[in-house]
Amino acid sequence: MTVEIDISKNMSPEPELMCIFGTGDLGRSLGLRLLQCGYRVLYGSRTPHSCGPLPQGAQVMTHEESARSAKLIFICVHREHYEFLEKMAPQLERKVLVDLSNNLKKDMYMEANAVYLQSVFSRLVPKAAVVKGLNTLSAWALQNGLLAGRQVYLCGNNEEAKRDVAEMATKLGLTVVDKGSLSAAKEVEDFPLQLFPEWRMPLYVAVGLSAFFFLYLLIRDIIYAYVENDEDISYRIMISLANKVSPIMSLIMLALCYLPGAIAGFLQLYRGTKYRRFPNWLDRWMLCRKQMGLLALGFAFLHVIYTLLIPVRYPNRHKVISSVVNEMKNNNTTPFYFDNTKAWGADSLFALGILGFFLFVLLGLTSLPSVGGTLSWREFSFVQSTLGHLTLFLCTAHCYIYAWNKFLRTSTYKWYTPPGSMLCLIVPSVTLVLKLILVLPCVNRPLMRIRQGWERNRPKDEMGELKATNM
Amino acid sequence: MTVEIDISKNMSPEPELMCIFGTGDLGRSLGLRLLQCGYRVLYGSRTPHSCGPLPQGAQVMTHEESARSAKLIFICVHREHYEFLEKMAPQLERKVLVDLSNNLKKDMYMEANAVYLQSVFSRLVPKAAVVKGLNTLSAWALQNGLLAGRQVYLCGNNEEAKRDVAEMATKLGLTVVDKGSLSAAKEVEDFPLQLFPEWRMPLYVAVGLSAFFFLYLLIRDIIYAYVENDEDISYRIMISLANKVSPIMSLIMLALCYLPGAIAGFLQLYRGTKYRRFPNWLDRWMLCRKQMGLLALGFAFLHVIYTLLIPVRYPNRHKVISSVVNEMKNNNTTPFYFDNTKAWGADSLFALGILGFFLFVLLGLTSLPSVGGTLSWREFSFVQSTLGHLTLFLCTAHCYIYAWNKFLRTSTYKWYTPPGSMLCLIVPSVTLVLKLILVLPCVNRPLMRIRQGWERNRPKDEMGELKATNM
Amino acid sequence: MTVEIDISKNMSPEPELMCIFGTGDLGRSLGLRLLQCGYRVLYGSRTPHSCGPLPQGAQVMTHEESARSAKLIFICVHREHYEFLEKMAPQLERKVLVDLSNNLKKDMYMEANAVYLQSVFSRLVPKAAVVKGLNTLSAWALQNGLLAGRQVYLCGNNEEAKRDVAEMATKLGLTVVDKGSLSAAKEVEDFPLQLFPEWRMPLYVAVGLSAFFFLYLLIRDIIYAYVENDEDISYRIMISLANKVSPIMSLIMLALCYLPGAIAGFLQLYRGTKYRRFPNWLDRWMLCRKQMGLLALGFAFLHVIYTLLIPVRYPNRHKVISSVVNEMKNNNTTPFYFDNTKAWGADSLFALGILGFFLFVLLGLTSLPSVGGTLSWREFSFVQSTLGHLTLFLCTAHCYIYAWNKFLRTSTYKWYTPPGSMLCLIVPSVTLVLKLILVLPCVNRPLMRIRQGWERNRPKDEMGELKATNM
Repeated sequence: MTVEIDISKNMSPEPELMCIFGTGDLGRSLGLRLLQCGYRVLYGSRTPHSCGPLPQGAQVMTHEESARSAKLIFICVHREHYEFLEKMAPQLERKVLVDLSNNLKKDMYMEANAVYLQSVFSRLVPKAAVVKGLNTLSAWALQNGLLAGRQVYLCGNNEEAKRDVAEMATKLGLTVVDKGSLSAAKEVEDFPLQLFPEWRMPLYVAVGLSAFFFLYLLIRDIIYAYVENDEDISYRIMISLANKVSPIMSLIMLALCYLPGAIAGFLQLYRGTKYRRFPNWLDRWMLCRKQMGLLALGFAFLHVIYTLLIPVRYPNRHKVISSVVNEMKNNNTTPFYFDNTKAWGADSLFALGILGFFLFVLLGLTSLPSVGGTLSWREFSFVQSTLGHLTLFLCTAHCYIYAWNKFLRTSTYKWYTPPGSMLCLIVPSVTLVLKLILVLPCVNRPLMRIRQGWERNRPKDEMGELKATNM
Repeated sequence: MTVEIDISKNMSPEPELMCIFGTGDLGRSLGLRLLQCGYRVLYGSRTPHSCGPLPQGAQVMTHEESARSAKLIFICVHREHYEFLEKMAPQLERKVLVDLSNNLKKDMYMEANAVYLQSVFSRLVPKAAVVKGLNTLSAWALQNGLLAGRQVYLCGNNEEAKRDVAEMATKLGLTVVDKGSLSAAKEVEDFPLQLFPEWRMPLYVAVGLSAFFFLYLLIRDIIYAYVENDEDISYRIMISLANKVSPIMSLIMLALCYLPGAIAGFLQLYRGTKYRRFPNWLDRWMLCRKQMGLLALGFAFLHVIYTLLIPVRYPNRHKVISSVVNEMKNNNTTPFYFDNTKAWGADSLFALGILGFFLFVLLGLTSLPSVGGTLSWREFSFVQSTLGHLTLFLCTAHCYIYAWNKFLRTSTYKWYTPPGSMLCLIVPSVTLVLKLILVLPCVNRPLMRIRQGWERNRPKDEMGELKATNM
Repeated sequence: MTVEIDISKNMSPEPELMCIFGTGDLGRSLGLRLLQCGYRVLYGSRTPHSCGPLPQGAQVMTHEESARSAKLIFICVHREHYEFLEKMAPQLERKVLVDLSNNLKKDMYMEANAVYLQSVFSRLVPKAAVVKGLNTLSAWALQNGLLAGRQVYLCGNNEEAKRDVAEMATKLGLTVVDKGSLSAAKEVEDFPLQLFPEWRMPLYVAVGLSAFFFLYLLIRDIIYAYVENDEDISYRIMISLANKVSPIMSLIMLALCYLPGAIAGFLQLYRGTKYRRFPNWLDRWMLCRKQMGLLALGFAFLHVIYTLLIPVRYPNRHKVISSVVNEMKNNNTTPFYFDNTKAWGADSLFALGILGFFLFVLLGLTSLPSVGGTLSWREFSFVQSTLGHLTLFLCTAHCYIYAWNKFLRTSTYKWYTPPGSMLCLIVPSVTLVLKLILVLPCVNRPLMRIRQGWERNRPKDEMGELKATNM
């Protein structure tokens, strides 16, 4: 791969020339990066003599001149100004036009910028090829060399043109993902305008459930106390209520993160094959498990800080002081009674909570891209599956201990509603039971065979055998 | 890009040969890495028969012999021993010498090592080209393959030589940044000796402000109590005082991290263009915003732990116990009074603080390179600008609630000085007001136009139009 | 490097063809990635007409046909099905077979899959070359483009074949590590089955020491109280005991992380050279310092949460209330006494602990791959050595303050055993003293010279001089 380079270098020592239309921030940053990677760079500008500072080593000419000598032309110009391209049809023949443009809003135009560009050319220079892509790169990332391993999307109708651009992008240290023909251009143009699309569903679920539990507990705790006992404990909204909602949400979100895996297992067992696609809702659910887990971690973090703050708070200090005062007032002569069982219960509650939170933080750390990327597949599955289910078990046990002596008291069921800690145990308990069934040897063995490619409903013909063959 | 490789391989199946002078740690690690990337490696040594273990597959010869067949020669030898290079002038003709040397201290020599090397050759072999670079790589990183995406700097007077080295470095998985001619060699040589240069300014600001507030509060709290009330509360220095300084510093540093952005906005509005450089102080301030934010997060972290520790501390336990004892001594027969307003105030204080800290930690997480790198531009700006200002708002509100009932009491102004919580509200309040003005539609619209390239003071001639054209 | 590509492209515009045997998950994902990187992909299948969905752009043929036109053939088929390869000997002549197979368990077969494959071919097609590698990649990582900078291992007996595969892997964005001949194939095949091998030793040490200290403290605290005072304080096992074990473990693990560096320094001083390998146990110890430090951070994290939880716990509340009640019962008329020295001691204890934990978290953050990778060598050594030893010093001081007034009391030595806080001070104290000796100028100067390559026991001949020369 190396000696031939010397040979060809003797024949043509010049590195490839790249042409950039547009001398704005993006154009200048892209040129800088191309120069750093060993390309020659030529800017095309309407006013080549007064276009401001350009990267050292780059040249600038008129659009027509600059287009002549390069094969790849980068369009770093707003869509409103594409019309000048129409006039230079002859110079653009056989060229590859890379459209890096982004719009300010989604659906600003009917068709994607690149499709519009291609349609302009299809009338004029049939031989020019438009490739949409690289538009997710910011001028800032280009200038600071923050490209290594970054994914960029390319699409275009001409395979060879795409290949040329992909090659250039690979040299810039980018990872290219081919999105197919120009029909994907709209999707590619919408990427930089996305705002956490994979977080949307988990956030909706989290906000919806939080609102429900907040209202539910507001009615059960504050309004109940006001209506029945005529007590104003509204100050509890700020922290006590929040400290009930956050652990409930944390536990439910964590369970929701492991439930789809169990459902998928049962579905595969029922179908007897892994080669049929999951229903759409399950697919989407599986894809946002990481986000659900991180939201659960966020709620757990809030719960921990809320709990640790309890003794600093005014109401708590008031409670301690007034309980002592009451103790004294009643003139108890026996020493204040220490309940050993209660101490065991309370400390087990805390110990389970701490261990659960500790494992939870570990899970969160391994979901950092730079940490997760260093794990082997078996390590990743150990952490996310084994440790994850252990965390869910510890947190569920933590909640059971908290709720255990409330189940049988009637005073718990204010206005005939169960307490929040009871409601929130449903999903994690179901998830753990399902998982428990799946790891039973009699269930696990056929599931493992299915996951290695075995199919139940298929006669053992050549094709079924081949499926099991492939990795 | 691929088939021609086969063709050339048939002509010359041998991979390119690299020569390394020096068989120390760095030389051996570099050779190992080059071999792993498919190069052949030849060591040049004064004593080729007794130079210790070399990577498997590498050969070793005398300096003269080894230099003959390679084009690139890596100099992994201390500067004190460069003189042997002078003697082998004929062998080094047309070669590229890559100088990887580092010095032990800054300014050990007048001129950079590479400049010295080049000057030696300019007299002797005018055709040899010196390229300075790769010196930021450690033997450890080379051995462990931790190079992916790592930035390395190159400089040199010969563009073709630099290109050859850049190409080799790209194959090693490095990201090359061209620093221009050999005049930058001193800067490049100083890189590995740098100690957090971008942290220096923020650290100076943090240490200076911390010292000021520490002394200010020491005088107001401890010395005031000693002088006026003859009370020794010096034990408060360790935690209570630190827990006053850290939130003050956290809030001020966070505000200082968002203030320059607001100032820049007003400056652009005033100038009516984005094409004029900011004054130097603003530029440097903008560049260390991330560091300021991380320092603010550090102070916030300390504040949270200090606050959570309050009830564990001996003075606090003493206060609780003695307050109960007093309560009893006074023979109060009424139940200890519960102040609902106070409970609301205290709990709001904590709730705002917790939410602010939670968002603060989120901001910190997105500033991790591996997390921030996965965000699209819009996501990054949402997190750093929208969430960031929300965090600043929550933390400022937290501080206002803490200070609200102190403003009007005269006992607050000990020795006529305002309390620290009041002083620290100035910068964040100013920052928030400025930001509020900037997001008003009547101010925001012209600013957006300026940031898209529009210029106020320029007639709408062709050039102004073109500026708006470019991205 | 670029223009010649155009030239060759004119001669042969087709990109290189890659052949994949096996259309399972891995085969399809690999093909997708190869297509994205600009290769053409051809699948070999026993039933080319019914092998399910393949990546767009790939073709599928019979094994025999597909092998004909490609040079590299990827084997993505389970080992049990290798026999079909024997039959197609003629088609595989001069081909490179890349074996990506993994086994389900370690030691499932006597010889490595690749060795078995090679032995099959050595009988049949002597010219085919087997390369083992890429088997650490998961189908999931391939599909999602998470390859940038990822290390893959290659081994094989044919250097040219390995080079071809390495080149292809580099284009996919991978970092290739050559593990030598096929004798390393077993090791390479075992990689994906590894479960945190570098964590094993530190975890054994941590679990062993934790178990020892847990039993030791259980006997000293709980069983002693039960036997001597007939008191049941078993509830303390859950939190109080855990909160004694975790700081002890944290301090010892942190010291164990810095002790081998000090030992290595003394060993180098004693030997007078850095060119002799350390004994095996020291080498292995040095290699798991990072893991030891992270385990120590985990214990410190548990200790912090346990400590912050103290006032929330039932036993603590009981203690506070009953201490007040006792205070009142005794009819003390003097105000409850405030011990200034005790306040200083307790607050210093906490202040040192907080600062130590803060620095500890900083150390942990810089050990994240994405953060540590951005540091220069001097910055990394500053953080890990200077800050690390400072952290160790702060934590040790924290422990000394905790234990200081217990050393001289006889009631401390229950059943003649020293308290845990005393035992755990031994290793950190030794480590700090050793480090202190090493930084004394009279010891540090010769050590620095040795680390720069100077050797004591060698006459100043040419070779010794050369050693000092190399970097």
